[in-house]
Amino acid sequence: MRSVGIGLIGCGTIGKGVVELLTRNAETIARKTGLRLELRHVCEINRSVWNSITLPSGRFTADLNDILNDPETNVAIELIGGTTVAGEVVKQCLAAGKDVVTANKALLAIRGKEMFAAARAAGQCIVFEASVGGGIPLLSSLREGLIANRIDALFGIVNGTCNYILSEMATHNRAYADVLEDAKRLGYAEPDPTLDVNGTDTAHKLAILAAMAFQADIDFATIPIEGIQAIDRMDLHVARELGYACKLLAIGERNDDGISLRVHPAFIRATHPLASVSGPFNAVSVYGNAVGHCLLYGRGAGPAPTASAIVADVIAAATGNARRTFEQFQLLQDQNEPAIMKPIDAIQSRYYVRAMVKDQPNVMAQITRIFGERAISLSAITQHEAEADAPQDIVPVAITTHMAREGAMREAIKEIEKLDVITAPCVCIRVVAEHEEFKA
Amino acid sequence: MRSVGIGLIGCGTIGKGVVELLTRNAETIARKTGLRLELRHVCEINRSVWNSITLPSGRFTADLNDILNDPETNVAIELIGGTTVAGEVVKQCLAAGKDVVTANKALLAIRGKEMFAAARAAGQCIVFEASVGGGIPLLSSLREGLIANRIDALFGIVNGTCNYILSEMATHNRAYADVLEDAKRLGYAEPDPTLDVNGTDTAHKLAILAAMAFQADIDFATIPIEGIQAIDRMDLHVARELGYACKLLAIGERNDDGISLRVHPAFIRATHPLASVSGPFNAVSVYGNAVGHCLLYGRGAGPAPTASAIVADVIAAATGNARRTFEQFQLLQDQNEPAIMKPIDAIQSRYYVRAMVKDQPNVMAQITRIFGERAISLSAITQHEAEADAPQDIVPVAITTHMAREGAMREAIKEIEKLDVITAPCVCIRVVAEHEEFKA
Repeated sequence: MRSVGIGLIGCGTIGKGVVELLTRNAETIARKTGLRLELRHVCEINRSVWNSITLPSGRFTADLNDILNDPETNVAIELIGGTTVAGEVVKQCLAAGKDVVTANKALLAIRGKEMFAAARAAGQCIVFEASVGGGIPLLSSLREGLIANRIDALFGIVNGTCNYILSEMATHNRAYADVLEDAKRLGYAEPDPTLDVNGTDTAHKLAILAAMAFQADIDFATIPIEGIQAIDRMDLHVARELGYACKLLAIGERNDDGISLRVHPAFIRATHPLASVSGPFNAVSVYGNAVGHCLLYGRGAGPAPTASAIVADVIAAATGNARRTFEQFQLLQDQNEPAIMKPIDAIQSRYYVRAMVKDQPNVMAQITRIFGERAISLSAITQHEAEADAPQDIVPVAITTHMAREGAMREAIKEIEKLDVITAPCVCIRVVAEHEEFKA
Repeated sequence: MRSVGIGLIGCGTIGKGVVELLTRNAETIARKTGLRLELRHVCEINRSVWNSITLPSGRFTADLNDILNDPETNVAIELIGGTTVAGEVVKQCLAAGKDVVTANKALLAIRGKEMFAAARAAGQCIVFEASVGGGIPLLSSLREGLIANRIDALFGIVNGTCNYILSEMATHNRAYADVLEDAKRLGYAEPDPTLDVNGTDTAHKLAILAAMAFQADIDFATIPIEGIQAIDRMDLHVARELGYACKLLAIGERNDDGISLRVHPAFIRATHPLASVSGPFNAVSVYGNAVGHCLLYGRGAGPAPTASAIVADVIAAATGNARRTFEQFQLLQDQNEPAIMKPIDAIQSRYYVRAMVKDQPNVMAQITRIFGERAISLSAITQHEAEADAPQDIVPVAITTHMAREGAMREAIKEIEKLDVITAPCVCIRVVAEHEEFKA
C-alpha cells in the first residue's frame, strides 16, 4: 500500500480535527483509496498544544524546515490562517516540492492569483475544498461533476455564524445582540465576530467560488459587502409575513455585460430550498446552463466537517488527480482575465425598506413622494406598532417596492434619511427573485 | 488543444441532449478543460432519428463496429438502456479499448459487478454519474469530496416521477390516478410508468449508491421495495397534519450487524431538508462520520441535466482521472465482499397505518387489541370522515405507533386485515426518524 507523507502546519481547532480524522478513519481511507496517509510532522509554534493531543513522539515541531526538508512529506496542509505568514509558508512549501492543501479563504480570496502562480512555477498544485462551505463538496463539483456547464449564477449561504444568528432571531423572535452573545458562548461565533457578521468572510468565499464558476480573476476589493448587524427581528417578522426568509447571501450572476458579485442580506421566497437552510448549516445554489438548479448543503464549519474536505484534498493530491486538473483546467485566478464587474448601482431588484419614523401626520406622504419622484413603484407599505421597549413616539414603517434600479433606491434612501421625521438610518434589504433555470 | 473522440450509442431523448450539449457548450468546455470533445459517431438503429437532428454527414451509423474499429474514438457513451443488449455493447466497447460512460442504472444495479470486472480486464474504466440523480454530482462526491468519510447512511429522493406525483397530490389535494395521467401528459412519467411508481427505478439507484457508499457488493434482488401506488391523498393529508411530508425514499444505513437497504414511502419531518424537495427534483442526504449531514439536490432527469453528468464523465475519462480512481480506489461491486444485509423484519421504526373500516361499534377495540397483543404502542388514532365519493358506511382510521419492530408490525397488519370490519388492505407507511449525525 502506497504511503503519503503529510505535514500539517498550524494545529488549532481545525488542525486537531484533521489529526483526529486521520487517526479515526485511517482504515476506512486505506480500504477505499489504497493509500496510507501518514502524518509525519505537525508544525505548531504554540508548544502548549504539543501536550494537548497524543501523537507518536517527534511528530510536533516548531520548525517549518522539518517539513520542507523531509523528502517523504508529499503534501503540506496550511492551517495558519490570515494572509501574511500563511502566504509565505504556502510559497515555501510549494518551492520545496510539496502540494499544498489549505482551508484559508482569506488568503485565496486576496492573494489567490499569486499563490496559484507560485504553485504552477513550482510544478505543484494547491487544493482548497475546505476554504468554502466546510465539508460540502462544492469546489470538486464545480471542477468535475458540473464541469460541462456554463455556470450562470451562484447563491450561497456560506457563513454559519450569520445563518445561526438570523435563524435564531427569526424562529424565537430574539434580539440580534442576545443571539450573538449566545453564539459566542456556544462556539458558533468567534470571540471577535466582526469578519463574520459584517459579511467579509462570506465575500472571501464568494470570491473563491466565483473565480472558479465564472473563470475570472476577481479583485476582492470590488465586491460590495453588507453584513447583518443592522437587521432587527422586526425585519425578519415582516419577511415571514410576506412569505420570505431573510438570509445573508453570497450572490454571483453572469450577465451579458459582465459579472455581478455581492454579499448582502436578502429576502428569499420561503419555498426556495435555500430558505430552509437554518442554524449552522451552509448551502450553495448553483445554476448551470445544462444542469439547471443544483444545490449543495451541509455543515460549513467545525473541525470534523472541515477535516473531511481537507483529507479529501490530501487524497486528491496524492492520487495525482488534483495536480492534473490544476495543470490542465483553466479555472483559477492566475489563468483567467480580470472579471468585468457589473456595478451594483446597475442591478435591478425588489427592495424592502424599513424606516424608523416619528409618529406624526404626513410622514407617509413625505416618504412616498421621494420614491415617486424616482419612479420607484411601491408594492406594500405597513406601519407596525412600536416594540414594547422602544420610545412610544417612534414607529417602524416597512415598505416593499416593485423592481427598481439599485442606484435610484440608494438616492431615495439618502433623501429619506434627510427627513426630519426619520430617527435612524433606514434598513434596506433586497428581495431576491428566484434565478431562472436554463436562461438562454 | 487535445481532441477526445466520442462514440454515442443510442440516440433517444438523452442522446439528443448529449449531442446538443456537446454543440452548445463546446467553447465553454474547451476553455475550462483544454479538451476539444469531438462526437465522431452516433450509433442508432432507428434511422428515422438520423434526420431528426443536424450533424455533419457520416456521423450517424447503424453499425457498432464503426465505433469499435475507430482508433480515434476514446470514449463510448452507452445510452441504449436495459440490461441485455446494453451489457453486451458495453463489454464490446471495453474490449475494443474504449472507456465507457453510461446512464444505465438497471444495467449497473443488476450486472454492475460483471461490467466493472470486464472494464478491469480490458484496462479501461466505466463512469456512471448520470445513472443516479441526473445532473447532481452525487457519485463524484462519494468518490472524491466525501472520500475521507465512513458513510453511515443515505436517504434519497431519486425518482422524479414519484416525487412529482406525491408533491402534486399533497399540494393540490388531487387523486393519484389523476396526477399520474397528468404526469404522463407532461412527460414527467413514461407511457408505462410501472418501474417508476412501483419503486424499482429507485431501488436500482439505491443499489448503485449503496455499493459505492458502503463498499459492498449488493445483490439487487435482496432489496425490499414498496412503491407509491397504494397511497391516497388522505394519507398525505394526515402526514401534513402530523408535521410530516410523504416521500418515496431510497434508504441505506450501515449498522453494526450489517447494511439495511430499502425503498418505501416514508413520512419525514416537514423541517428536514428532504421534505421541501418537490416536483421533479431529486435529492440525496448523505451522512458521513466526519462531514455529518450533507445533501445534494437538483434535477434528477431530463435531457440537459443528464447530459451534464454524461459529459462531465466523458471529461473525467479523457483526463485520465476517472481511470485512476477506477483502478486505485476500492469502491465498486467487483472489488468488495457481498453485503451483509440486515433483514427488513429486524428494523425498528415508527409507523403510520391507515385502515378502511366499516363504521360500526367496537372496531377500534378490535384493532387496538391486535397492536396491544404484539406490544406495539400507539401514539395517535384518528378516525377521519369519509371522502365525499366514498361509500358512507366505510371510514378511514389512521394510526401512528411508537417505535416498533417491522416484523411485529407486519404480523399485526396481517391480523387486522383478517377482521370482518376491514374492507381493503391497510396502507402502512414508515415514519422515518432523522438520522443522527456523527454517530459513534
